Amino acid sequence: MTSYQQKQWIYTQRPLGRVSEQHYQLKSHRYAPQLANNEVLIETTLVSVDPYMRIQQSEKPTWEQPHPLNTVQGAATVSKVLLSNNDNFKVGDLVAGYTGWQTHTAVHGSELQKLASDIDPTTALGVLGMPGRTAWFGLMEAGKPRAGETVVVSGAAGAVGSLVVQFALKNGCKVIALAGTSEKCEWLEQLGVQHALNYKDFDNASHLADTLASLGGVDVYFDNVGGFITDAVMQSLKLHARIVICGQISQYDGGLDNPAQGPRFLHQMLYKRATIEGVLARDYSHRMDEMLRHVGPWVAAGEITFKSTIVEGFELLPQTLGGLFEGQNTGKAIVRI
Amino acid sequence: MTSYQQKQWIYTQRPLGRVSEQHYQLKSHRYAPQLANNEVLIETTLVSVDPYMRIQQSEKPTWEQPHPLNTVQGAATVSKVLLSNNDNFKVGDLVAGYTGWQTHTAVHGSELQKLASDIDPTTALGVLGMPGRTAWFGLMEAGKPRAGETVVVSGAAGAVGSLVVQFALKNGCKVIALAGTSEKCEWLEQLGVQHALNYKDFDNASHLADTLASLGGVDVYFDNVGGFITDAVMQSLKLHARIVICGQISQYDGGLDNPAQGPRFLHQMLYKRATIEGVLARDYSHRMDEMLRHVGPWVAAGEITFKSTIVEGFELLPQTLGGLFEGQNTGKAIVRI
Repeated sequence: MTSYQQKQWIYTQRPLGRVSEQHYQLKSHRYAPQLANNEVLIETTLVSVDPYMRIQQSEKPTWEQPHPLNTVQGAATVSKVLLSNNDNFKVGDLVAGYTGWQTHTAVHGSELQKLASDIDPTTALGVLGMPGRTAWFGLMEAGKPRAGETVVVSGAAGAVGSLVVQFALKNGCKVIALAGTSEKCEWLEQLGVQHALNYKDFDNASHLADTLASLGGVDVYFDNVGGFITDAVMQSLKLHARIVICGQISQYDGGLDNPAQGPRFLHQMLYKRATIEGVLARDYSHRMDEMLRHVGPWVAAGEITFKSTIVEGFELLPQTLGGLFEGQNTGKAIVRI
Repeated sequence: MTSYQQKQWIYTQRPLGRVSEQHYQLKSHRYAPQLANNEVLIETTLVSVDPYMRIQQSEKPTWEQPHPLNTVQGAATVSKVLLSNNDNFKVGDLVAGYTGWQTHTAVHGSELQKLASDIDPTTALGVLGMPGRTAWFGLMEAGKPRAGETVVVSGAAGAVGSLVVQFALKNGCKVIALAGTSEKCEWLEQLGVQHALNYKDFDNASHLADTLASLGGVDVYFDNVGGFITDAVMQSLKLHARIVICGQISQYDGGLDNPAQGPRFLHQMLYKRATIEGVLARDYSHRMDEMLRHVGPWVAAGEITFKSTIVEGFELLPQTLGGLFEGQNTGKAIVRI
């Protein structure tokens, strides 16, 4: 029986602040699985790194119980089939699954989706995967943008944000994109946003709020970041503004378990009869096909730009996760093995 | 021509903290109006005192520009007709209007609604007026309560809150009512709430959150108060909770212009896919009849309890307004002239 050198990142310790390598243990051993009926042995080539992973490491329950300790870090992956005991998969097939931070594993075929050989496999982790679904339904269903309205996106150069920006533009909206480097802002301008703002150019929320007000105020806010950017938007809402909470990445270094203080803003909701809605990708999992019917043709026609920051090396997974909270990635963060 | 001693409270100075007599000037002079076509001279008997008045004194625009200085304080009133140049009104008629803090005024008949002679005139300022409309549409349309769900109401013994409580009970909900004295809590228990909590019994938001969690968590939160009560509810939400922001009375002593700090909570919206919506009575003004069709028969049948705290004396208007922010009233605060 052939054996493989299986490497795994085991989640061993709950981070209190920034997550890093010290919260994981790298294991490596020979692996010679006996495939059960309908199982497939895969070798992972692309591993997803997403901000939600840090939420699942919070001490308190979030949308579920915390990620269990001493198990392989969960993650979406793209892999190739090495051995197959399942008629739907043959050796060499490219598959997407949720198989975590490990190089090899045996998995039941029902847990895998076969990828077409003619598409960029990174799309399965981005525009045609979970981030695309989050961006599409979060913006269109919770945000309800109308043509001509102003959509503000925080974390606009990220995996979800950069798609929200483009979906809003396709919908005829004016887009104000917030990101943390001038390079990101330049890219967002290339994508066609009317205003790309580097939030680091603003001393405080009032300063940013003044700028947002001078640009006409906010109809829809798609929030990936929270913190002072959100404080500023709350002061700049237009009547019946819709706020979509997709992430609060500025708060993930411990602020979820022990919330930071910020200015109270609920009176603004009253003044503007505004709404806030939290959205989570999994609530739309059963509508993946619907998203693909909208977005798939745009991707095939090259009308949607998707970017990945690809880090080479399985060993770099924990630090790539930590790097999300420093804004190191543009577009989707992926580790290639 | 008959003349009258007209007294008026003129709003002269913007409060920075608690509003009081020093922000008003009491004027008194002889008044002998010449009625124009369709005008009516009224003598006011009941004057409404509402928390929203303090919002309109904020420095920054709210849902409109600030209440103008050096004008009569705006307010809903009940009055009787002294003279009439309008075929729809005769001397002695009881009328509701928005004629402000003054004892007498001439007003166009189109600005007045005639009240039936057989109803308690305080209802025009409460259950069958603006507070009733706010409670009904805020709860039913924004809160969308389903039978069996848990509705938490802050400021539950107030003009709006005590109606929300009763509408929620009629809707088959379990109600947790929050108020600030044991007398108020006893009254709320008489109204039938499952749990009446005196928020002053809780040291901090975590303590209150633990209690709310032990009672099963929150499906709908109707918020009149804000501050630490709201902080606690945000930690106790159930999946798809709906939060209705009707008021933030704990923040009205200056916290609207210069927001206080509180714990960030938007990650909870994500965890629970919860929504927040701000509601304002005026958005439902055109649907007053619809509210009356629902609530009017309950009032006529004695199925809704409405209470007023009636302060005797025109001179006490400013301090009655300030007293709202100390929780002095149970039910609707009214000054009788």
